[in-house]
Amino acid sequence: MHKTHTYCFETGDGKNPLLLGSKGANLCELTQLGINVPPGFIITSEVSHQYFATQSLPENLMDEVIEQITKIERQTGKAFGGDTDPLLVSIRSSAPQLMTGAMETILNLGLNSVTIAGLLEATDDPRFVFDTYRRFIQAFGVMVLGVPEQSFIEQFTFVKSAAGINSDSALTHFQLEEICYRYLNLVHKETGQAFPDHVYQQLEMALIAGYQFWQANFPTAQAPAVNIVTMVFGNLGDDCAIGHCVTRNPQTGEDELYGEYLPNAHAEDVVKGIRTPKQIQDLKHEQPEHYLQLLALRQKLEIYFQEVQSFDFTIERGQLYCLQTRNANLDIAATLKTSVDMVKQGLIKQDQALLRINPESLETLLHPQLLDHQGFLTQGIAASPGAASGQCVFDNDTAIRLSKQGVSVILLREETKPEDIPGFQVSAGILTSRGGKTSHAAVTTRGMGIACVVGAEEFKIDTKSKLAIMGDLRIKEGDSISLDGSTGKIYAGFKATRAPSFSSSLKTLLTWADASASIKVLANADTPETAQLALRYGAQGIGLCRTERMFNVKDRLPLVIEMILASSTKEREDALAKLFPIQRDDFEQMLATLSPHSLTIRLLDPPMHEFLPNEQQILEEIDALSQLFKITQGQRITRETLGHQDAFELAQQSVTESHISSAINKKTLVLAKVRELSEINPMLGHRGVRLGISYPEIYAMQIRSILEASARCLKRRIPVKPEIMVPQVITAQELKIVKLQVSEIQKEVEELYKVKLNFKFGTMIETVRACTRADTLADTAEFFSFGTNDLTQATFSFSREDAENKFLPLYKTTGVLKDDPFESLDVNGVGKLMEMAVSLGRSKRGDLKVGICGEHGGHPLSVNYCHDIGLDYVSCSALRIPIARLAAAQAQLLNPR
Amino acid sequence: MHKTHTYCFETGDGKNPLLLGSKGANLCELTQLGINVPPGFIITSEVSHQYFATQSLPENLMDEVIEQITKIERQTGKAFGGDTDPLLVSIRSSAPQLMTGAMETILNLGLNSVTIAGLLEATDDPRFVFDTYRRFIQAFGVMVLGVPEQSFIEQFTFVKSAAGINSDSALTHFQLEEICYRYLNLVHKETGQAFPDHVYQQLEMALIAGYQFWQANFPTAQAPAVNIVTMVFGNLGDDCAIGHCVTRNPQTGEDELYGEYLPNAHAEDVVKGIRTPKQIQDLKHEQPEHYLQLLALRQKLEIYFQEVQSFDFTIERGQLYCLQTRNANLDIAATLKTSVDMVKQGLIKQDQALLRINPESLETLLHPQLLDHQGFLTQGIAASPGAASGQCVFDNDTAIRLSKQGVSVILLREETKPEDIPGFQVSAGILTSRGGKTSHAAVTTRGMGIACVVGAEEFKIDTKSKLAIMGDLRIKEGDSISLDGSTGKIYAGFKATRAPSFSSSLKTLLTWADASASIKVLANADTPETAQLALRYGAQGIGLCRTERMFNVKDRLPLVIEMILASSTKEREDALAKLFPIQRDDFEQMLATLSPHSLTIRLLDPPMHEFLPNEQQILEEIDALSQLFKITQGQRITRETLGHQDAFELAQQSVTESHISSAINKKTLVLAKVRELSEINPMLGHRGVRLGISYPEIYAMQIRSILEASARCLKRRIPVKPEIMVPQVITAQELKIVKLQVSEIQKEVEELYKVKLNFKFGTMIETVRACTRADTLADTAEFFSFGTNDLTQATFSFSREDAENKFLPLYKTTGVLKDDPFESLDVNGVGKLMEMAVSLGRSKRGDLKVGICGEHGGHPLSVNYCHDIGLDYVSCSALRIPIARLAAAQAQLLNPR
Repeated sequence: MHKTHTYCFETGDGKNPLLLGSKGANLCELTQLGINVPPGFIITSEVSHQYFATQSLPENLMDEVIEQITKIERQTGKAFGGDTDPLLVSIRSSAPQLMTGAMETILNLGLNSVTIAGLLEATDDPRFVFDTYRRFIQAFGVMVLGVPEQSFIEQFTFVKSAAGINSDSALTHFQLEEICYRYLNLVHKETGQAFPDHVYQQLEMALIAGYQFWQANFPTAQAPAVNIVTMVFGNLGDDCAIGHCVTRNPQTGEDELYGEYLPNAHAEDVVKGIRTPKQIQDLKHEQPEHYLQLLALRQKLEIYFQEVQSFDFTIERGQLYCLQTRNANLDIAATLKTSVDMVKQGLIKQDQALLRINPESLETLLHPQLLDHQGFLTQGIAASPGAASGQCVFDNDTAIRLSKQGVSVILLREETKPEDIPGFQVSAGILTSRGGKTSHAAVTTRGMGIACVVGAEEFKIDTKSKLAIMGDLRIKEGDSISLDGSTGKIYAGFKATRAPSFSSSLKTLLTWADASASIKVLANADTPETAQLALRYGAQGIGLCRTERMFNVKDRLPLVIEMILASSTKEREDALAKLFPIQRDDFEQMLATLSPHSLTIRLLDPPMHEFLPNEQQILEEIDALSQLFKITQGQRITRETLGHQDAFELAQQSVTESHISSAINKKTLVLAKVRELSEINPMLGHRGVRLGISYPEIYAMQIRSILEASARCLKRRIPVKPEIMVPQVITAQELKIVKLQVSEIQKEVEELYKVKLNFKFGTMIETVRACTRADTLADTAEFFSFGTNDLTQATFSFSREDAENKFLPLYKTTGVLKDDPFESLDVNGVGKLMEMAVSLGRSKRGDLKVGICGEHGGHPLSVNYCHDIGLDYVSCSALRIPIARLAAAQAQLLNPR
Repeated sequence: MHKTHTYCFETGDGKNPLLLGSKGANLCELTQLGINVPPGFIITSEVSHQYFATQSLPENLMDEVIEQITKIERQTGKAFGGDTDPLLVSIRSSAPQLMTGAMETILNLGLNSVTIAGLLEATDDPRFVFDTYRRFIQAFGVMVLGVPEQSFIEQFTFVKSAAGINSDSALTHFQLEEICYRYLNLVHKETGQAFPDHVYQQLEMALIAGYQFWQANFPTAQAPAVNIVTMVFGNLGDDCAIGHCVTRNPQTGEDELYGEYLPNAHAEDVVKGIRTPKQIQDLKHEQPEHYLQLLALRQKLEIYFQEVQSFDFTIERGQLYCLQTRNANLDIAATLKTSVDMVKQGLIKQDQALLRINPESLETLLHPQLLDHQGFLTQGIAASPGAASGQCVFDNDTAIRLSKQGVSVILLREETKPEDIPGFQVSAGILTSRGGKTSHAAVTTRGMGIACVVGAEEFKIDTKSKLAIMGDLRIKEGDSISLDGSTGKIYAGFKATRAPSFSSSLKTLLTWADASASIKVLANADTPETAQLALRYGAQGIGLCRTERMFNVKDRLPLVIEMILASSTKEREDALAKLFPIQRDDFEQMLATLSPHSLTIRLLDPPMHEFLPNEQQILEEIDALSQLFKITQGQRITRETLGHQDAFELAQQSVTESHISSAINKKTLVLAKVRELSEINPMLGHRGVRLGISYPEIYAMQIRSILEASARCLKRRIPVKPEIMVPQVITAQELKIVKLQVSEIQKEVEELYKVKLNFKFGTMIETVRACTRADTLADTAEFFSFGTNDLTQATFSFSREDAENKFLPLYKTTGVLKDDPFESLDVNGVGKLMEMAVSLGRSKRGDLKVGICGEHGGHPLSVNYCHDIGLDYVSCSALRIPIARLAAAQAQLLNPR
């Protein structure tokens, strides 16, 4: 009893590429599907293994091969080595996975002195016959017999020049015949042996040469199978053709056959670009019958493979052969459209459509894209995705002025500050020479959906002289540049961009996604505008509204600073009283925008010194003011001589000495406060609920704002779902203290507005201790929201900003860390803590709502993980919403809960 | 069938203070022990409960009382209300726990017109009888009948002044008798009723009044029992006495009866200080028989209670009565000595001795103590325990000069720096006006065992003018002050201190402790001196040697800075090559000192900028140097005009311009590096193993130093146990990288020295992620050492320095946190992570050695916790070693493993 070494296409298992190679298995599938494939068979990969091990073919292999060939002879009516209508075959290796650069194919094996005559008789086309023969001798000579390719080329060139011919196609069949004889002589001379004339000897030699070539050049673990397939010819007359098709348009996804063909042609004609292929639609008119055959093939392929297919075909004397097929490479827009269409056409199920799309690939649909990538200048850090092209500006005023004239502008700064926000709002893109992914520019633009590249360190940006200098290159105001915030690349000149397209297919797909998902997708948004964008993108509410973003706006900052500089509780309360109506109106607008969805508002989190200018800056300002004090009247003061806005503005007014000295006094007060508030590790300092407990009047103002805003909405018959969230909690006692405050204010507001308020009270889980004490926190908290940015910092003892500048790059390149834990949620560390928190929290409160609002919330792997550990929602930036929605559906489909 | 409401001392359960009150139970115990206690009985606390609930006594209570009294009458031969030898009793409430301020006792109940006569006959002492009677009438009148005390005093004063008498003791029995009648009349007038004459009526009324008083003034949940006890008198003649004894000397622990007595006296005489008591030793000669009775009583008490007892006695006509006894309050030295003695005397077991001593109380034995606390100036932060007294100095040079003259000095600074260490080494104490428990001064002095108070903010310390100013007070160089580093208090003037006493009892006790303990006690030490101290205190090795402390010494710092400023790996290696022999010699000396104990060396941990001066300081230095540049030659330069040492020293030399400009250049380089290395959150920055992986040459130098030092010791036939420990690890990959480095260097060193090295390789567990990944770390690490300082910071997201300055005080006063987690290990947060790490680590490596080397390691509660979770050792500062050793024993005794 011996093992089978060969399978013909009719019997081979199409689902076993390991044994039959990917191409071989594909041909078996097609054949058994009733598709017209040239008959053939496969020598299994086990034979390769045996050859690699023993350097010999299995004893009985050639007997089996003869049997298989005989079968093909019966099917085709041709004879291998026969003198009439001879059978020619191709022989090619086929690995389990498609590999590029693998062994070349030998075509037309089976030609010799006898079969040449038969082929002449059968085709009545001597030019075709000798052209085919010389190709075969050369391929076999080089690949199997080891004759240098150059020697063949020399002979070929000799005949061509002797005949005074430039183009191969001008060679006559006589000249081609001469080339054949010269080739046979060449082989005899080079190898000392006649060119093998026996067709089975040819086959065996080709086979062995193939195995040896593979063993020398490729991993033997991935042993290939070998396909031996009947040759079919697209160049035997006008009823012949070759072509390549995709079952649908791979760029647009249009539901129509797409591709090219060449009538009466050899594949090499296409490769060499000798003839221009025709559009497949032309075939409809030229060879309507063949076109119908192609349509039938297309339908069969899509029904069977349930994916858009890319296939090669040959039409030999009116007979359509499919040579191979594979899943087509589609643009993401096409993938979306075809998937949705195929669901509607009943070809696939919704789940399949949802699962076949990589959520991250949606990103390109949501941002503008550069149409070309010429003129590369430098590489920065990709900070906020999307492309932008426009004129360079170096200050906010110019940005605003130009944008009003309809000019697209790119704002260039060394680094940015809260006061640059008005400039951001009118710019197509932001470029900074300093800072990382957590810099002000990066964080703010991501929130606003503006393209941004930061840390382009090769640029020296000089705001005073309005220049960006890189080596000899000087970019001045008004010069055009382009940037890609998804790659961090900067380009010279203006470039057209493709606008983002939120197509109807995407909408449909995401609607299906929502229906499938069990984890909800919410957005992080701090303004009504971002909230609206989030809702358009399908957010089911706002999971994180950072109140400090509302503080950090130019017209409010003075009030916030007044509050911070307050030297008594009373003074602080006075300043807060001025902030109160502003915050209340903010919340009322947000709540109304969100209605009826939930709005989770986080109470003030960052340390107070973040709202103050830095020490160096104040010192410089004081210095400038002191200079001003000395300047004699009448002297012309320019911004440049002073350098600082405050001093300049004072100088422009008709200032008195007392004006200046009062300005100096004010700055000196700020300086003292900055120094008092300075911290060694601000990340671990006086912030979050610690601040709230130290200065209860701040949280009181915020809580009252939220509750009065809710009451006002209710009065306007707008249903609202506010949620109050406490940051940086480490112990239940902190929550109880804030909850008590909330309850007292709730009572007052309900009496004042005569309404019954309905809201949730919960906590961020962003300290490690909150995870270990989640059971006690759940006594008071009705919901948890994981702040995985801070939690990751605490788990790793990494300060994100310091890590990204100092050692994270090294840790990634040396493989100490596989991924940046700030981008990809660290399941083994942070994840363990999250699981602990979920399980402890729910042990106390069965209906505890749990979500995540760190930046990880918008990353598919993290969404998947959050689904798996039972979270109720993820909350991410508005522009990540579609990605998260799809990821949420996939998570449920892969691991239903 | 009714419940018993009363128990006589012969039958009451001495172990049931809840039912019988603590005093009552004690009297039952004594009685049943065969000790002569005045006969009596107890009305249970259940009666109190019933009275509180119903405002009436149980129906049959008084019948039971009569029964009990009748029993006493039989025992004593006296009669309650009898006309010959009448029985008098005291009545007092007795709560389950001893309570101060509880109901006063009524003595001598049972006196009336009839019994007065009997008592006169029985005592033949009318003065005693009427004195006793008037006391009883007044006490009963005030407490039971509600007559104002002032009214009694008026009557008493009236009689005294009418008789022209100043002193109570000068009153005759006639005058006392008159007072009695006046009192009886007063009661009649005030209450409208005659003073109750019937003795059982007296008893019942006293009982009810007692219950009502309790209910009005004390928690009714702690219902008292009531004791009714036969009165005995120490003032009936020369064969009478009263006294108080402790079974051993409560200050020294000497094994001899200790106490005082007064012959023929009333307890009030002692209270009022009318007579001076005699030492109990005098009784030996004066009443030898009674003294022998006392010795017998002492022995009985100690054998039974197994603790030193403090007891009251009365001798009535030659008969010794013990009135009560309780565990004596002993000084810690006495506690130690008596406990060890009692073990040796077979009175108690070793375990009892070990368990009865609070480990923290040992601290006072290990540091000098101030003998008085007059002249308090201000309160700072207790930074390093112990007391110091001496002359104030404001700079190191003066400290060194004076200390060489034998003067005890206290070094005063605003804050301290590494360059102050030479000053530390010669000072008795350190006082700073800034900084907290983690400041340089605090951390360094704790390591060195020098008394230190930091953050005494009321002081303005001016080093230039050598003044410490607090309000009007100006302390100048040479003035004496005293400080207590255990309390943080500062005192004016020189004070004597009591030297620390590592007594033989303490040594014995700690030897027993070591034999009992299962968790080992190691020390944190960075120098051979500290290591030696630790060994003297009983450390079983060094669990943490911080190599950066070796860097931070004045003569090495320039080399370290050279290494940091290096602009290439080569330059850095050159600098390291100079550090190498120094580190190697350090380690060789440490290893030799420790032999044969283990020495765990932590590779470099702090971020490099910690070794550089701060930015402000360099800027000032550059400024000073620039001024110098301008100074014309010949002008007198003083340190004051320049302010900075470098500039001053340059000026003192005959400097050239190029000298100065090169100094400026050097400083400018340092400034650039300081800025480059600056971090936003250095605690979470480029430090520990991250530094080691970024600059492998640094760890290579350290590893080679350790291994060569070990090889050299082996060559000297000194057995050593070095352990290499990696800080700040978050993932197994980091450990593998360092381990590979170690293995390569090990091979080289073994070949160089021709020895076989034996050492352990392990990791700090001080990041949260290390806890969650402890299983994978244990693949490479042979030991874990918890760094609970950093782990606590990461768990709470608290920067210790910022927290202690900004919000920890508030969190403690408002009860958000019960304890400071940096002092008391947070079992619920940090502890959970530790347990996770231990269990994961041992799941991979069964014999994994696990310890703790954070500051918590020396705190008894933490030692206990570390024992409970299965740690192998704790490592703490040398001066905490004895405390930890005792705590380790207690942990094992309370929870054996």
